[in-house]
Amino acid sequence: MAHIDLGVDETLFPGINGPLRYRPETAEPLLELAEVLLRGPHPLSEGDRELIAAYVSGLNECDFCCGSHSAFAAAQLDEGMAIVDQVRADLDTAPVSEKLRALLRIAGAVARGGRAVDAGLVAAARTAGAVDLEIHDTVLIAAAFCMYNRYVDGLATFTPTDPRIYANAAERIVQKGYQG
Amino acid sequence: MAHIDLGVDETLFPGINGPLRYRPETAEPLLELAEVLLRGPHPLSEGDRELIAAYVSGLNECDFCCGSHSAFAAAQLDEGMAIVDQVRADLDTAPVSEKLRALLRIAGAVARGGRAVDAGLVAAARTAGAVDLEIHDTVLIAAAFCMYNRYVDGLATFTPTDPRIYANAAERIVQKGYQG
Repeated sequence: MAHIDLGVDETLFPGINGPLRYRPETAEPLLELAEVLLRGPHPLSEGDRELIAAYVSGLNECDFCCGSHSAFAAAQLDEGMAIVDQVRADLDTAPVSEKLRALLRIAGAVARGGRAVDAGLVAAARTAGAVDLEIHDTVLIAAAFCMYNRYVDGLATFTPTDPRIYANAAERIVQKGYQG
Repeated sequence: MAHIDLGVDETLFPGINGPLRYRPETAEPLLELAEVLLRGPHPLSEGDRELIAAYVSGLNECDFCCGSHSAFAAAQLDEGMAIVDQVRADLDTAPVSEKLRALLRIAGAVARGGRAVDAGLVAAARTAGAVDLEIHDTVLIAAAFCMYNRYVDGLATFTPTDPRIYANAAERIVQKGYQG
């Protein structure tokens, strides 16, 4: 049970969904931010951006967010869940582009702390072809998931274990987005 | 100099202000979230909420955010900067209410990670008089500053050292808010 009474059946509104229903005034900007960062027009595909979100959520050990965004990434990447698992298991050897690998390294640094993003990581991303907007949004996606992850676990919300729940959520997100 | 070209004179748009100008699509929800959390109608005063933001920013070693929100807290608390400094130096002995002390302890746990917020910290806040909304918003303010701090430092934005710059910003925030 969550640390506060969210006013909903947590099995029907797991993870962040309970707090979003509890406080609609903060839900609105939280969902708008996710929509712009993960689904807005962008040089990085929706699948790649969800992969950054899943990777950071895994580093932060947020099972609900990691399960959710892994499913959202898998639903939008040709290689499906296999590539998500490989990135999370060993970023150095996962079969992703060098640009995405360099951006994921920046995201991992953000999870440790903002100051961990050094000029070398940024230069490596640029050498691999990343442009300013991709670097900016990688930093902000990673930073935003350091928030979402702490919001979900800091309130001790319910984390489903049935993978079908995450797969169903992925279908909804792909069809309707975060504000749908 | 920031890791990316923010397209502004960073001395005129220090810290988060450069990235907010660079990417207005994400600036909108980021500022709306700050406005609701720190200045919306609430059982906690604006000063107390800014103090939570300053405290977390200090723990995350984000000098720009800590300088900014310390000034914003000081401008809205009767005890001014003295109480901000005391809380940041030693939360256990700082002369704040037991409720605020318990909420600040929850905020400190969020900075370490969502799972660090345990039932004991929440029970202590409740015993000291905190209601669900105060616990929810403390968790989300702390989580949000784990994002803002990483956004500011992850892009290596400019951090002014002149305290008058933070005091001037405080005047603007108190008068016009985050979306003004």
